[in-house]
Amino acid sequence: MTARAKTEPASPRYDIAALVEALGDVPVVTEPVIVRRRSRDFFWYSPILAEQLKAVAGDIIVQPRDEADVVRTAAACAKLRIPLTVRAGGTGNYGQAMPLEGGVILDMTALNAVLWQKPGVVRVQTGMNLLALDGETRANGFELRMHPSTKRTATVGGFVAGGSGGVGSVAYGGLREPGNILAARIVTVEEQPRILELRQDAAQKVNRAYGTTGIITELEMPLAPAWPWIDVIVAFDTFRDAFEAGRAVALADGVVKKLVTPIAWPIPSYFGSLKAACPEGKAILVCMIAEPFLDSFKAVLGGRGTVTHEAPSQEGPGQVPLYEFSWNHTTLQWLKTDRSITYLQLLYPHDRLEETVFRLMEQFEGEVLPHLEFIRFAGRITCSALPIVRYTTPERLDEIIRIHEDHGVMVANPHVVSLEDGSRHKRADADQLGFKADVDPMGLLNPGKMASYVAVR
Amino acid sequence: MTARAKTEPASPRYDIAALVEALGDVPVVTEPVIVRRRSRDFFWYSPILAEQLKAVAGDIIVQPRDEADVVRTAAACAKLRIPLTVRAGGTGNYGQAMPLEGGVILDMTALNAVLWQKPGVVRVQTGMNLLALDGETRANGFELRMHPSTKRTATVGGFVAGGSGGVGSVAYGGLREPGNILAARIVTVEEQPRILELRQDAAQKVNRAYGTTGIITELEMPLAPAWPWIDVIVAFDTFRDAFEAGRAVALADGVVKKLVTPIAWPIPSYFGSLKAACPEGKAILVCMIAEPFLDSFKAVLGGRGTVTHEAPSQEGPGQVPLYEFSWNHTTLQWLKTDRSITYLQLLYPHDRLEETVFRLMEQFEGEVLPHLEFIRFAGRITCSALPIVRYTTPERLDEIIRIHEDHGVMVANPHVVSLEDGSRHKRADADQLGFKADVDPMGLLNPGKMASYVAVR
Repeated sequence: MTARAKTEPASPRYDIAALVEALGDVPVVTEPVIVRRRSRDFFWYSPILAEQLKAVAGDIIVQPRDEADVVRTAAACAKLRIPLTVRAGGTGNYGQAMPLEGGVILDMTALNAVLWQKPGVVRVQTGMNLLALDGETRANGFELRMHPSTKRTATVGGFVAGGSGGVGSVAYGGLREPGNILAARIVTVEEQPRILELRQDAAQKVNRAYGTTGIITELEMPLAPAWPWIDVIVAFDTFRDAFEAGRAVALADGVVKKLVTPIAWPIPSYFGSLKAACPEGKAILVCMIAEPFLDSFKAVLGGRGTVTHEAPSQEGPGQVPLYEFSWNHTTLQWLKTDRSITYLQLLYPHDRLEETVFRLMEQFEGEVLPHLEFIRFAGRITCSALPIVRYTTPERLDEIIRIHEDHGVMVANPHVVSLEDGSRHKRADADQLGFKADVDPMGLLNPGKMASYVAVR
Repeated sequence: MTARAKTEPASPRYDIAALVEALGDVPVVTEPVIVRRRSRDFFWYSPILAEQLKAVAGDIIVQPRDEADVVRTAAACAKLRIPLTVRAGGTGNYGQAMPLEGGVILDMTALNAVLWQKPGVVRVQTGMNLLALDGETRANGFELRMHPSTKRTATVGGFVAGGSGGVGSVAYGGLREPGNILAARIVTVEEQPRILELRQDAAQKVNRAYGTTGIITELEMPLAPAWPWIDVIVAFDTFRDAFEAGRAVALADGVVKKLVTPIAWPIPSYFGSLKAACPEGKAILVCMIAEPFLDSFKAVLGGRGTVTHEAPSQEGPGQVPLYEFSWNHTTLQWLKTDRSITYLQLLYPHDRLEETVFRLMEQFEGEVLPHLEFIRFAGRITCSALPIVRYTTPERLDEIIRIHEDHGVMVANPHVVSLEDGSRHKRADADQLGFKADVDPMGLLNPGKMASYVAVR
């Protein structure tokens, strides 16, 4: 953790009055209670960050109506040396878009239009809500290849800037895979901001950079055919049974699927509205299967387990889609009633998947509770994981992480604020670091997150 | 090879006159030249089968107009103990549907209607041509998940009865994968034929059984979204370069693709109409990529190789789609001008793919010329292969096969007539063998192909 990550209250060190003046008619909010609330995300999932970041707040919310407003804000921040943290849905889980050094909260949610669609591709403004975007693409028979479990509240820009994959990654891999982000348009933070179009590989410079490498205003995203999805829960006597059935489903290329999630008991005991489908003491497998291939899915199960829930996936108001019990929503379900637990983010080696999962499961029995997500990674089926951790001390959490790493498990630590500490490789992507010098030379974008960047202010 | 596979001329041992009488108004053809021509397939790809099967001919062609005609024919053949070999496009490569014991050629091509479609699924009569079927499904935005390189002349029934996979298997695996055949309706060969509906796993009883396990009248097949496909050829200095680029493309889950085919020089020197795209001495990679993701495909290439051909895939009259240079059409391109070569059908182990490919390539340099097909198999990327073999003797061909098997390569020998000899496991599928006793107890369906079945006549 760097000195920067230490949190101060919103400070008068920035000339906010001059900023407001420079912004002209760009909408702003300065009411401290609102600014403080909009400075937070789900950082409290981590008991460590909950303490470290609790006082973090920006100084002002700026609400651009269009890209011109974004450019105006970027120019003003550059001139006045005011940090600028881009945000939208605020659904991050480890303070990705919390303004560690105060300054401007750039609320992108008004940039929420679909610019164009063609079969297989959508161009959209980054502040668009993912569920709303789905409504627009689904009208043409398409949907995003993947989305976070926060689809109903998150934005496409937040997903690309903070996410690595999600519901759909079992078929398409992560956002980092070539083809999963087709283009990004960004505004640089300079006194004379530039607008850059990044295509294909270059677009990866904004993926999971937490908004440190330019202000993304537009994204061009690939689409998948929109199937009618069926939510399914299958209960098994043991977690190993759920794992093996899930692996068979994940490997079945003839079965169109979007989610394959084995979860160990007692995690499902916290699944309030789904309790009837989560029998006492049973591990469950949570799946989303394309309706025409549901029978093929059951053929792959081959009689293993008991289907306890099967219904069309519904995600409208008042409805709870099954994916809100997967990925990091699994953790949230438990945290709703018990804040003594936390979680980790793991990626298992594809060639020693089963042995590694079960060796670590035994070693940490009762302390690290398995929750896996089958995904494709670099063309191979493996598991990402967001296990529930019964938290004791920061030292023990570090030890758990170290032991996982010793077994070849990649850990993206969600208990640290910098993207370096939180990355699997403990460093910033070289492309992203170099690119930052070009697009944010003064290091004003979300400072403290790309900690290895040395600003020239 | 069993005694049965020895070929006799069409014999008077069957009471064809009684058959014609029993068939009533069911159309038949008895003109010997036509019957003989319609008894053949592309068995001559194999110099061994070319000799063995050259005299094979049925006694009569029966052309059912509907399922009732099929039932009537099955009943008559059962009563009269006349063998019955089901055929359609006649595009098989190793005598799969040649009437080793004469008798009836059951020509299914008049059963060619789409029965119904819904998003993701089509129900079709088995005699329907694959290109015509594509026209019907594409109107609704869908296409078959995979097809043989003979799509323009083959039928869906022939593909399921004789095929293992093809163009599209790089994304969906083979026909044997759960979900890749949803249902089959068959007529049994008994004095009182039954009609059976086989769904999911049960439908596999007709896959690659060469029509020995019932007469398939209808198939329910899963569909994939119909993308506009771009045919691409990329040239490389070495076959290893083509292999490595192909593997990267095959593993790129973000790039929607249907064909990834590395081919060693000098095979492309036989690609007549494509010669301009096949530079002297270069290995090529033949691909079909969904148009919206062509740039992502090129990003995966990352500057490797030279794109020498890039055009929308066209398969209408007078046009030659690129897939007619892949799978076993690759072999055909060479055979058009030189019948001294033949081929093999291989499946490489996914976990030792590269080392095995290149070890065998070195060992058989100049004799076995690499032509790989990247596919998914049981959820993993590996290669199927149809190498060109410079043929010398049957003994040497056997030795080549044995050495490949010694290296863990599965060989589906296309130089033998029985499905046991030709299967990777050298035996009939137990389910299929048991099922045959139920649906064809007298062993009248395509006799000699499921050689381990002991008929009760």
